[in-house]
Amino acid sequence: MAAESAKELRALGEAIRAGRKTLGLSQEDFAERCDVHRTYVGQVERGEKNISFTNVLRIARAIGQKPSVLLGKAGL
Amino acid sequence: MAAESAKELRALGEAIRAGRKTLGLSQEDFAERCDVHRTYVGQVERGEKNISFTNVLRIARAIGQKPSVLLGKAGL
Repeated sequence: MAAESAKELRALGEAIRAGRKTLGLSQEDFAERCDVHRTYVGQVERGEKNISFTNVLRIARAIGQKPSVLLGKAGL
Repeated sequence: MAAESAKELRALGEAIRAGRKTLGLSQEDFAERCDVHRTYVGQVERGEKNISFTNVLRIARAIGQKPSVLLGKAGL
């Protein structure tokens, strides 16, 4: 994966982690809210996953942010 | 795929198509600019592909819009 993309995935992951922490949720509780596996949340937060667009939408919904706002918070 | 996600993918596809048309590019020329296959551009524009996040970034870059702006134009 291009270095640029890896950096952007990490930025998205950090914005997702910040959103999760605002909700005061553990990765496990947040995974349940998103209906994804707990380890997937950890991987996405660390920028290790080339997450699908529909999962970005699902996670943004679970955080309670518009996807465009979540990306803006990630500086994207 | 959930109906909601299908609707959102179509909205993203329409915003990408509008961006491409603003550049006055054919799907073929735009695919070359994005370094993806021509048929992939058509599928994404029709909302038929659960596009990866890094490809959303790549396409936004090719359009010359921030990814958060592209999503905003898609109403997401």
